[in-house]
Amino acid sequence: MDDCVFCKIIKGEIPSKTIYEDEIVKVFMDINPDDNGHMLIVPKKHIADFTELDDETALHINKIVKELKDKVYDRLNPDGIRFVNNYGVYQLVKHYHLHLIPCYEPKQPIVDVDIIYDKLK
Amino acid sequence: MDDCVFCKIIKGEIPSKTIYEDEIVKVFMDINPDDNGHMLIVPKKHIADFTELDDETALHINKIVKELKDKVYDRLNPDGIRFVNNYGVYQLVKHYHLHLIPCYEPKQPIVDVDIIYDKLK
Repeated sequence: MDDCVFCKIIKGEIPSKTIYEDEIVKVFMDINPDDNGHMLIVPKKHIADFTELDDETALHINKIVKELKDKVYDRLNPDGIRFVNNYGVYQLVKHYHLHLIPCYEPKQPIVDVDIIYDKLK
Repeated sequence: MDDCVFCKIIKGEIPSKTIYEDEIVKVFMDINPDDNGHMLIVPKKHIADFTELDDETALHINKIVKELKDKVYDRLNPDGIRFVNNYGVYQLVKHYHLHLIPCYEPKQPIVDVDIIYDKLK
C-alpha cells in the first residue's frame, strides 16, 4: 500500500536495521524498543492485521521465530522472549507485525539500537 | 504431563471457566486477568513452549483466534486485543499458551472474572 510505512521499509524506500529477510517476511529492529533486541517480524505483502493472516504466512512466521529465538539467545543471552501482536487501538501501523521482545531479569537499561543491531546483524 | 496445571485443567481435574473447546485446543479465562476478558488459548497436548508448536496446532490456533476476536468484540466491545506468548522467564506455566487480552481505551477497572465469563460463555 502506497501510504504504509512498513510497505515502504520492505521496498527499501525507508531504511531499516534488517536482521533477516526472505521472500515472505522481513525482520527489522524496532526503533523504539521496549527492551534491548526488540524486533518486528513483518510479512512482505500488505496484510492489515491478524484477521487477514493466511496459512502460508502464519506457518512461515511460526518457523522463522524459532530461528530468531536461537539467534537472539546466542547473541544477547536474554532470560526470555515475549511475542506480542496488537490488534485495534494499540496496533499503530496497520500492517501485520509480530513483536519479538527479549526479556531480561532484572530488567536492563535500554541502550542505543545500533549497539544491539551490531550484535544481531 | 502429570504435574502440569494446564494438563490438569484440560483433563477436567482442575476446574476452569471455559470459553471454547475442541479436539485440539481449550480456551479458558485467566484467573488473574491483565484486563477484562483475558483468556488463554491452550493446545490440549502438552507442548512445552512455542519452539515445540507444530504446524497443525499453529494453524488451528490461527483460525480459532479469529473466531474468538469476533466473540470478544460482540460481547465485550473492547478497543483492541493484544496477543502475547511468553517464552523463558515470563512463561510461568511450561505448557504453551497464547494470551488473548482485550484492551480498553481508556483502561477499565478490572472486575470479577465471573462477571466477564457470564458475558462470554
